[in-house]
Amino acid sequence: MIQFRNTEEGLEVLYKQHVVFNHTRMRPSFFVGSGHATIKTYRGNYNIRDHVDSRIPLEHVDIDGNTLLFHKDRHQLKVTFCDEYDRLTVHFEADQPYERFWMRLHAERDEKIYGCGQQYSYFNLRHRQCPLWASEPGVGRDPRSLTTFHANLHDRAGGHYHTTGHPDTTFVSSRCYWTHVETYAFAEFNFRHDDYHELHVWEVPERLVLGKTDTHLALMTHLTAYTGRPPRLPDDLHDGIMLGVQGGTEVVLSYLRQAQAAGVKVNGLWCQDWVGHKYTTFGKRLFWNWLWNETLYPDLKQHIKTLKAQNIRFMAYISPHLLKGESLFNEAASKGYLIQNEKGEPYIDDFGEIEGSQVDLTHPGAFTWYKQVIKTHLIDMGFAGWMADFGEYLPIDCRLHNGENPMHMHNQWPVLWARCNYEAVKESGKLGEIVYFMRAGGHGSQTYATALWTGDQSVNWEKHDGIASVIPATLSAGIIGNPYMHSDIGGYTSLYGNIRTKELFERWLEFSVFSAFMRTHEGNRPEQNFQFYRDHETLSLMARMTSVRQDLKPYIVHMVDEAVKHGYPLQRPLFLHYPDETISYETTYAFLFGQDLYVKPVIEPFATTQIVNLPNDEWIHLWSGEAYQGGETAIPAPIGQPPVFYRKQSTFAPLFNDVTQTYRQRQEYADGKATDL
Amino acid sequence: MIQFRNTEEGLEVLYKQHVVFNHTRMRPSFFVGSGHATIKTYRGNYNIRDHVDSRIPLEHVDIDGNTLLFHKDRHQLKVTFCDEYDRLTVHFEADQPYERFWMRLHAERDEKIYGCGQQYSYFNLRHRQCPLWASEPGVGRDPRSLTTFHANLHDRAGGHYHTTGHPDTTFVSSRCYWTHVETYAFAEFNFRHDDYHELHVWEVPERLVLGKTDTHLALMTHLTAYTGRPPRLPDDLHDGIMLGVQGGTEVVLSYLRQAQAAGVKVNGLWCQDWVGHKYTTFGKRLFWNWLWNETLYPDLKQHIKTLKAQNIRFMAYISPHLLKGESLFNEAASKGYLIQNEKGEPYIDDFGEIEGSQVDLTHPGAFTWYKQVIKTHLIDMGFAGWMADFGEYLPIDCRLHNGENPMHMHNQWPVLWARCNYEAVKESGKLGEIVYFMRAGGHGSQTYATALWTGDQSVNWEKHDGIASVIPATLSAGIIGNPYMHSDIGGYTSLYGNIRTKELFERWLEFSVFSAFMRTHEGNRPEQNFQFYRDHETLSLMARMTSVRQDLKPYIVHMVDEAVKHGYPLQRPLFLHYPDETISYETTYAFLFGQDLYVKPVIEPFATTQIVNLPNDEWIHLWSGEAYQGGETAIPAPIGQPPVFYRKQSTFAPLFNDVTQTYRQRQEYADGKATDL
Repeated sequence: MIQFRNTEEGLEVLYKQHVVFNHTRMRPSFFVGSGHATIKTYRGNYNIRDHVDSRIPLEHVDIDGNTLLFHKDRHQLKVTFCDEYDRLTVHFEADQPYERFWMRLHAERDEKIYGCGQQYSYFNLRHRQCPLWASEPGVGRDPRSLTTFHANLHDRAGGHYHTTGHPDTTFVSSRCYWTHVETYAFAEFNFRHDDYHELHVWEVPERLVLGKTDTHLALMTHLTAYTGRPPRLPDDLHDGIMLGVQGGTEVVLSYLRQAQAAGVKVNGLWCQDWVGHKYTTFGKRLFWNWLWNETLYPDLKQHIKTLKAQNIRFMAYISPHLLKGESLFNEAASKGYLIQNEKGEPYIDDFGEIEGSQVDLTHPGAFTWYKQVIKTHLIDMGFAGWMADFGEYLPIDCRLHNGENPMHMHNQWPVLWARCNYEAVKESGKLGEIVYFMRAGGHGSQTYATALWTGDQSVNWEKHDGIASVIPATLSAGIIGNPYMHSDIGGYTSLYGNIRTKELFERWLEFSVFSAFMRTHEGNRPEQNFQFYRDHETLSLMARMTSVRQDLKPYIVHMVDEAVKHGYPLQRPLFLHYPDETISYETTYAFLFGQDLYVKPVIEPFATTQIVNLPNDEWIHLWSGEAYQGGETAIPAPIGQPPVFYRKQSTFAPLFNDVTQTYRQRQEYADGKATDL
Repeated sequence: MIQFRNTEEGLEVLYKQHVVFNHTRMRPSFFVGSGHATIKTYRGNYNIRDHVDSRIPLEHVDIDGNTLLFHKDRHQLKVTFCDEYDRLTVHFEADQPYERFWMRLHAERDEKIYGCGQQYSYFNLRHRQCPLWASEPGVGRDPRSLTTFHANLHDRAGGHYHTTGHPDTTFVSSRCYWTHVETYAFAEFNFRHDDYHELHVWEVPERLVLGKTDTHLALMTHLTAYTGRPPRLPDDLHDGIMLGVQGGTEVVLSYLRQAQAAGVKVNGLWCQDWVGHKYTTFGKRLFWNWLWNETLYPDLKQHIKTLKAQNIRFMAYISPHLLKGESLFNEAASKGYLIQNEKGEPYIDDFGEIEGSQVDLTHPGAFTWYKQVIKTHLIDMGFAGWMADFGEYLPIDCRLHNGENPMHMHNQWPVLWARCNYEAVKESGKLGEIVYFMRAGGHGSQTYATALWTGDQSVNWEKHDGIASVIPATLSAGIIGNPYMHSDIGGYTSLYGNIRTKELFERWLEFSVFSAFMRTHEGNRPEQNFQFYRDHETLSLMARMTSVRQDLKPYIVHMVDEAVKHGYPLQRPLFLHYPDETISYETTYAFLFGQDLYVKPVIEPFATTQIVNLPNDEWIHLWSGEAYQGGETAIPAPIGQPPVFYRKQSTFAPLFNDVTQTYRQRQEYADGKATDL
């Protein structure tokens, strides 16, 4: 399957007839060199300036069996090609430990690129340049937005289109291959060039792994066989919505009763403040000592049991950070379980008016201890899951127990954090039952994160950081093997004048029916922002949308089956099922929910209609039952009717038709045309 | 004077005992390589993204007499060191035409760097990285300012701290050397490193030239002997102020009469709209066909004569741009005198709602023709000078008559433009009489520009683009041999809510006494902004400040003598005369006007006092006559009394004392203490 082919000016490497490298002396495939970087860190935001000292093009190549020796004078790189497990693996062995490494994969002009972790701004990364470095995803994420302007001015936190808490050196090409570069070092993938992709890594990576199949569906299965797949998402998550509420036992139960009385199907309460609060200028934050706050949540254990009997999950919150001076911090510090500064003391970081440290996840004792914290204080409490927050903050100047350079551990940190949660749950025998959801990630999240959420969107309509950004983030993480994606309904970050409106919340709600699960969030400043529990109309809409969710359950369970068996993500780019249509590869803000539902969320304010561009098939509009062919159409899209279509030929068509009928009846009832529901 | 000295790990090159290069195999002094850039241009703003393909450290060095051969394998660079005219010249000869070149000069940790053209944000460039590329200087010039935010949003015009219309590959070090890299290609000088300065050029430059003296004063003379010096600034420029006014013969004469009636000493009228107007959304702009508009300025020739008899210059305006479809454009086009597009047609550019082209200054016929335009339409009209605007807009994709790559001509363009003016004036026998002033510049401006102004400041107090930025721009251009610097009194750019206030105008006025000459500007939106002719109080202040200017004339003439004889700039950094004080090297916003006046302009709004940090000497406060020693003092600084001190030991002390007495009398008169002026 591997071929080396001499060309006029050099050498091509093919795998399954697919050109992987196209090397010439003038345009070599590999470069090695040296460099030094200046990195400024501020509360999870990284300003990285690189200075390349040398960059040696390895112009010459010698063939020795399956090994190519790329070299220039005393610099050489041994590149060994193997076909193992139906994958191309390319091993790199350098003559010295180069600080900088560049590799050019062959590219074609019209090729598109997807993946590289959670990418919030662009699904197709062609003509983009993506630093791959775990960080706060950024506020506004666009220097042309006032949100970003203010975030930079006040907190250096504005970000760019490429900032992400979940970078991954894995991507998928429209040419139907996937590839992964084995490294957690800083990387920057440059897809700007017409005839090559330049992958830059701050070390010589171990390997490049590449898979090639005939179809993108087969590619998903092939890729996830390599990355691994997460535990099955439990079925009860499709029964309704998880209410993200806070304030103590009485308060959260009253929200539950209120929602249920309004007809909302509730499958969980997510109460991040189970540990109590800490107020900062950013907003209401949590008390980072991961112990039950009995004052705020009296009788919690009993309530958890009662709720569980009603099929309502009680969900919590945890992060790898520990609040300075509190019990878990003190215990970890005394045992040497915290990351250290150069003096060997606990490394204290400012997380934004919160001082704390992090558990050293490279320390086997610390890792086990923190798993035990999760088991004792979360699993044994009866929590059915939690937000496993953060993971992007490993300081690059700390000392780690394993002696590794933090620059090489930083991007692995979110994965270690995921694995810590994974093992705690696994060892408790609760994989497939407990669900924790993460923002940070990396190569390994595919196995270790039971679900992901798309991070802390701003509570507005900005393309790069508002409601819209959920979609590329979902699709990009999904295409590299993270099937269970969802978002904070209503968004999270309310800063610099961005205040969540009712309309935003409702638009977010309606399209979250078509995600891995539905979960609301009060946001960082609950009092100033719209909350569903203050609005009867919104509660009615929640009742309606959670009913739709429940009605779709058999279909969603089927999708989860596919995720488990085939590695297909729930939300899918159009090209997975419509590979022959050009537009499938260019669509960012529409997706397929499984094979049979086309969804184009409303992501603009004041919309009454939405233009959709349906793939070439027979479609039925989910809310009206009207039939459509492929092509561009304007569809009415009042709130509660996000543009969703089902495939007429779907085996689930009767189920979808039931939804249509039920919804129509309700709508007619609401319009006064029917007298009884 | 040149020494090659073996070190433990490599080789040092010394000149006059001064380490110039410190080469080791691990930290070579030279690198060569290749790269490709993406450059986006929009109305004089350039977005430049470089991609380095290779960067070869020339690790090895062989000595052959005065030549060092730096090499690595097949890459080699012959570096020949000569001591000529008391300068070190370093000739470069590469084995192939490299696209990228890096050179590391030895640096010391505490060293400071000044120059590189007009640098508006920082005088000391140490720890800065300066792309050297002629462009619009930028609006706001600071991504953290709202001005820049809006300028980027609307016009991609916000700029950075380093954007400048006058880049120069010449700088001066606190270690008392100057150096110039002979190139007009894109360059980027990186002063961020502790132990080297990395000078990056997009070609192998011809030479590096370096001068070393014992004192910074001697260095100015030494440097300007190399760069050349401009014609002597005429004495009448010290007699008062040049009024920048517009609107036609009657209007400008009425402003003159009004000012004179108020006691303002006027030495010129600068009427840029002598060609008529064109209105755009940016504001009132000029009709770029450089011919007398007889409708707007009837009887102009006669008035010019009358004014000249009163020692009042009449000043005009011109640029290298020609308005499409107008007579000069048509004539130039028909002769093939315009820069061309790839089809061989005139290259039409959008200068901001103005379509036009540029005279091809590489075409000897065009150059001569445009000199003739200047002679016929400006000099023969009797104009005593003009603003010679622009020069930063040579498109990088045009075709030039000389066949050169526009990337290599772009930075030279302002210098050609200066030379065109210079030769027109010289051939008319009017050097030292006619004064044109330029914003754009480069290596060569020192000879060819009769004066510079500091570009188009925003009409506000922003550090990077408001009144403050005049000072670093003045000092940086001055230190590399441009002695005659001044600015638009009141600033120019009024956009995005920035409106000139009376206070700003008056602060700008008062410190412009201590510049090469005083000239007001109405700004880009005259109607919306403060104008002196609408305010009697301001006219009184102008009367007072222009009297001071006139009183200082003997001293200023002496400074001009020094500029001619020794190359000293009029506004000088403190270290020229106080080289032993650390603070002399760290001061940006104070300067010496000649040897004997210390000036620290008020550049903040609402100031009533100003803190000054006087060099160690005996000083007399110019307005109060009070004596001060060196050190930090708070000084009253009401409007009209900018903090200025004279050296008690100055030979001009009696003159300064007269100013003090005169001023005090006036102040006491104003305060009612004296009954007669």
